[in-house]
Amino acid sequence: MNIGMLGTGMVGQAIGSRLVELGHNVMMGSRSAANENARAWVRSRGQLASHGTFAEAAAFGEILFNCTAGRGSLSALEFPRRSDLNGKILVDLANPLDFSRGMPPTLTVCNVDSLGEQIQRAHPLLRVVKALNTVNVELMAHPELLHGPHDAFICGNDLEAKAEATRILNEWFGWKSVIDLGDISNSRGLEMALPLWISLQKKLGTNIFNFKIVK
Amino acid sequence: MNIGMLGTGMVGQAIGSRLVELGHNVMMGSRSAANENARAWVRSRGQLASHGTFAEAAAFGEILFNCTAGRGSLSALEFPRRSDLNGKILVDLANPLDFSRGMPPTLTVCNVDSLGEQIQRAHPLLRVVKALNTVNVELMAHPELLHGPHDAFICGNDLEAKAEATRILNEWFGWKSVIDLGDISNSRGLEMALPLWISLQKKLGTNIFNFKIVK
Repeated sequence: MNIGMLGTGMVGQAIGSRLVELGHNVMMGSRSAANENARAWVRSRGQLASHGTFAEAAAFGEILFNCTAGRGSLSALEFPRRSDLNGKILVDLANPLDFSRGMPPTLTVCNVDSLGEQIQRAHPLLRVVKALNTVNVELMAHPELLHGPHDAFICGNDLEAKAEATRILNEWFGWKSVIDLGDISNSRGLEMALPLWISLQKKLGTNIFNFKIVK
Repeated sequence: MNIGMLGTGMVGQAIGSRLVELGHNVMMGSRSAANENARAWVRSRGQLASHGTFAEAAAFGEILFNCTAGRGSLSALEFPRRSDLNGKILVDLANPLDFSRGMPPTLTVCNVDSLGEQIQRAHPLLRVVKALNTVNVELMAHPELLHGPHDAFICGNDLEAKAEATRILNEWFGWKSVIDLGDISNSRGLEMALPLWISLQKKLGTNIFNFKIVK
């Protein structure tokens, strides 16, 4: 499958690398096609990997992954043509972290809105599925790094898109448990979990942990 | 031990009832000593249970539990004399839920501040320990309702107060795992977990669930 990645940071590289391993054609998109992260990643990943602008990656992908920093997600999504977004699934991995106040980061949007909702409102025909924003990049495509069961969370308005995202998480990334929380407004809860995640990271001294829902 | 409860709702009744079962003297405090919830609770719980005003309950308790609705916590804590609060442990179970926008509730404070921090700032000599706000009232004093391990979270500035709160959670309420997240600023993460909790409640169709941290 042809897959478009928006963002060239750690999340884009981790997800993109896993997708190339699985035999998919992956184009990593950035603000400038000359992006050094993207060029280095392409050199290291062989013929299935390519890079381009946000617009080119969106045009290329049958499915898109939002791997931009949350504060840049809305502006990144302004570059593609509407016709290259409409009808496509966007798996939104981003968190709206605001580092301008220092550490720990706060959120640029929360409580009465969320980045997932903002993206969906800005692009009503894009099929946004919030996913995996509550785990660190190392775990996103390698949940087997943790022993014992633990949960991935998704939400979104489009049932078919969520079914496809669940299949990707299950079959491509290896997630055994994917909990669909409902419509895209549940992005609020998923993004607002970040401060607790950051508290836990500090306490546990590792990024490699996750939530398991016990009932 | 003499224990003062602030608040007469479900949380106050559940915690107060467990403390009476354990043989403690519990005074349930409310805005008015004529509070019907408190009177009914006292009638059903026998000689160890009593009720009074917020000021009387704070004066009575060697340890205090904040079981008020979060939007009323700061005003409830204005009634006691400072000398009846200073030096005491306040186990803060409250969430700053705002139902004024309809369901699901939002938070009255979040992101750059939290109710736990507000209480601690308003009463610098009160030893605030945020605890158990991420589980439903039924689980607070009965974690054994869930099978398999799951976690309680606490935070606060005073190490001795957190050690005592941990002992109470372990020995009185039966929590096997209590994770201390650090200083009271970690209340932000604990309170901001509520929207995810609410999404999960809707999805799972039950209040009886909790988070387990897998690492």
